[in-house]
Amino acid sequence: MKAVVRRGTELVTTDLGEPTPGEGQVLVKTLVCGICGSDLHALHYLDHMVEMTRKAGGSESINPKADLVFGHEFSAEVLDYGPGTDKRLKPGTRVVSVPTAIGPQGAELIGYSNRFPGGFAERMVLQEALLLEVPNGLSAEAAALTEPMSVGEHAVAQSGVTQQSVALVIGCGPVGLSVIAALKARGVGPVIATDLSPERRAAAEKMGADIVLDPRAHSPHDKWEGFDVPATMASFSTAQLLGRSRRDAIVFECVGVPGMLQNLIQNVPPTATIIVVGVCMESDVIEPSLAINKQLSLKFVFAYSADEFATTLHAIAQGERVFEPLLSGSVGRSGVADAFQRLSAGGDCIKIMVDPSRA
Amino acid sequence: MKAVVRRGTELVTTDLGEPTPGEGQVLVKTLVCGICGSDLHALHYLDHMVEMTRKAGGSESINPKADLVFGHEFSAEVLDYGPGTDKRLKPGTRVVSVPTAIGPQGAELIGYSNRFPGGFAERMVLQEALLLEVPNGLSAEAAALTEPMSVGEHAVAQSGVTQQSVALVIGCGPVGLSVIAALKARGVGPVIATDLSPERRAAAEKMGADIVLDPRAHSPHDKWEGFDVPATMASFSTAQLLGRSRRDAIVFECVGVPGMLQNLIQNVPPTATIIVVGVCMESDVIEPSLAINKQLSLKFVFAYSADEFATTLHAIAQGERVFEPLLSGSVGRSGVADAFQRLSAGGDCIKIMVDPSRA
Repeated sequence: MKAVVRRGTELVTTDLGEPTPGEGQVLVKTLVCGICGSDLHALHYLDHMVEMTRKAGGSESINPKADLVFGHEFSAEVLDYGPGTDKRLKPGTRVVSVPTAIGPQGAELIGYSNRFPGGFAERMVLQEALLLEVPNGLSAEAAALTEPMSVGEHAVAQSGVTQQSVALVIGCGPVGLSVIAALKARGVGPVIATDLSPERRAAAEKMGADIVLDPRAHSPHDKWEGFDVPATMASFSTAQLLGRSRRDAIVFECVGVPGMLQNLIQNVPPTATIIVVGVCMESDVIEPSLAINKQLSLKFVFAYSADEFATTLHAIAQGERVFEPLLSGSVGRSGVADAFQRLSAGGDCIKIMVDPSRA
Repeated sequence: MKAVVRRGTELVTTDLGEPTPGEGQVLVKTLVCGICGSDLHALHYLDHMVEMTRKAGGSESINPKADLVFGHEFSAEVLDYGPGTDKRLKPGTRVVSVPTAIGPQGAELIGYSNRFPGGFAERMVLQEALLLEVPNGLSAEAAALTEPMSVGEHAVAQSGVTQQSVALVIGCGPVGLSVIAALKARGVGPVIATDLSPERRAAAEKMGADIVLDPRAHSPHDKWEGFDVPATMASFSTAQLLGRSRRDAIVFECVGVPGMLQNLIQNVPPTATIIVVGVCMESDVIEPSLAINKQLSLKFVFAYSADEFATTLHAIAQGERVFEPLLSGSVGRSGVADAFQRLSAGGDCIKIMVDPSRA
């Protein structure tokens, strides 16, 4: 089969052997697969990612020197079943799945595995038990957004946000936009969003953000007091003394570059919660005494549960999540390397889908 | 009146003018007043503390170049009332108070104010409305522990700890010991505690910690799995797959030196909550991607509410908080500078009380 392979730090279009479904597994045809920010990073820094996963206590068996096929945000079509399967879904059924497969050494992440090719290959092997049928009529592209939008769903679910909260979303890439979708679906408002890119700000507006700002022109932190969030320690203390509760501030950090955390620690209101969704792969410097003075919480979140994944698929299919502004077009195999470059340069596009059946 | 004054970075025993209670204020005789870790820091780095408070949006009016009298962990005796007071408590009544007084520019912290001398002076001015009568028979020393023990009370209240949690307390100074007291009062167990000092480890045992470790000899992080806390990502994922809930890990960081946060991010179990109580006054370096991988929460906490202060006083008075191990003796005015040095050297003593009426 045809696939785009990571070889060293290059993306190479090549032929691979056909994957064979094992016990409990299914062979599927990839329909489309999104390019994730983690893929951009992993192209050059896979060693570092493996090292971080190992440090976190993960049983990581990736060999960064061997070939692997990226792609964990896919929709697919059932082709054939391996041994020991129930064959619940007919061949031709459209499916999505959390990107996990069980190999001889345990669970591996599809798209970050030397053994299981991801969605930048024409065909994949998935676990039958994890398949979710795509509800009738949902496009392959929309179904493939289940994975990235589950990340936003999980971040919002973990945040403790209520309809009384004021939310600020820093960075309107795919993750930030998914956070906005999950916030608006819960009736949270106002949702304030910022991004340096005019294209991403336009997408944030279409997702339903109430106030969208260019952070070079307007600090989002000037807005807090207008929404009855305690903007300063003095306004916080006064509210406490008067026994008056003010609205809580929840900030979603969806950028993931060094310096963002300290910038937020310095500028968010006292008692704010910062949900760290953007993955900063470098070390970062913070001033803990300032965070203590302001009694801030930093909640680091990652991925999603199988339940959140299923909830997101059905919410998209039922029209309960805006998703169209995420889609910035698609490429065939020969366009993947260029798409990585465009996305790395940032700004003008959001989610590019790969159709691995197209040259 | 006699007082120990911070002048530059020196502690000087000197005479001060008598304080006069203003509208709504009370003149009190200081009985005893604890030396706080913040005082040790402020002796040399008050400029930096003022700068941090300003950055946090506090309305800080301290002039670090002018004299001030430290001491915010006091018990006192009512002497006389200012104008516009209810005179609810008879002269001679023993009282404590949150260390706040209202000056012409708003609220100031008693003990960190150029206007309101703290408890290292023979007499102070307090707000009548904030006075709490010390319940019958509680010693002046025990009453003066209300303030530092409220810090532990607040940290535990904010932590989300339950009787199903496993708690780890890093650092058994006054704050760490107060955290242990508040945890054991809630029936949390096991409580694991670590400190480099044998004296402080002995105090932790007396406070009721279940497992007390010298971190140079035994890593507390080896203990998690034994208490059914997910010790690794693999054990966390397996528990999730099996739908089995494991106990949550709550870690109280009560040391406050650079490097502690990253050490914990590296070593605590996945999904742990780290309550940051120890005030690290320097910048600190963390690896956010590791915290994301492990889905950690960092909750920075500070001080206490007026309710928590009152709760702590009554809990101490009703024998519901072990406090005796915190008391390491007392000094008169001439012993304060030396006590600061002993406490800064760390380890062999915990809370030293100042009796400002003694030479």
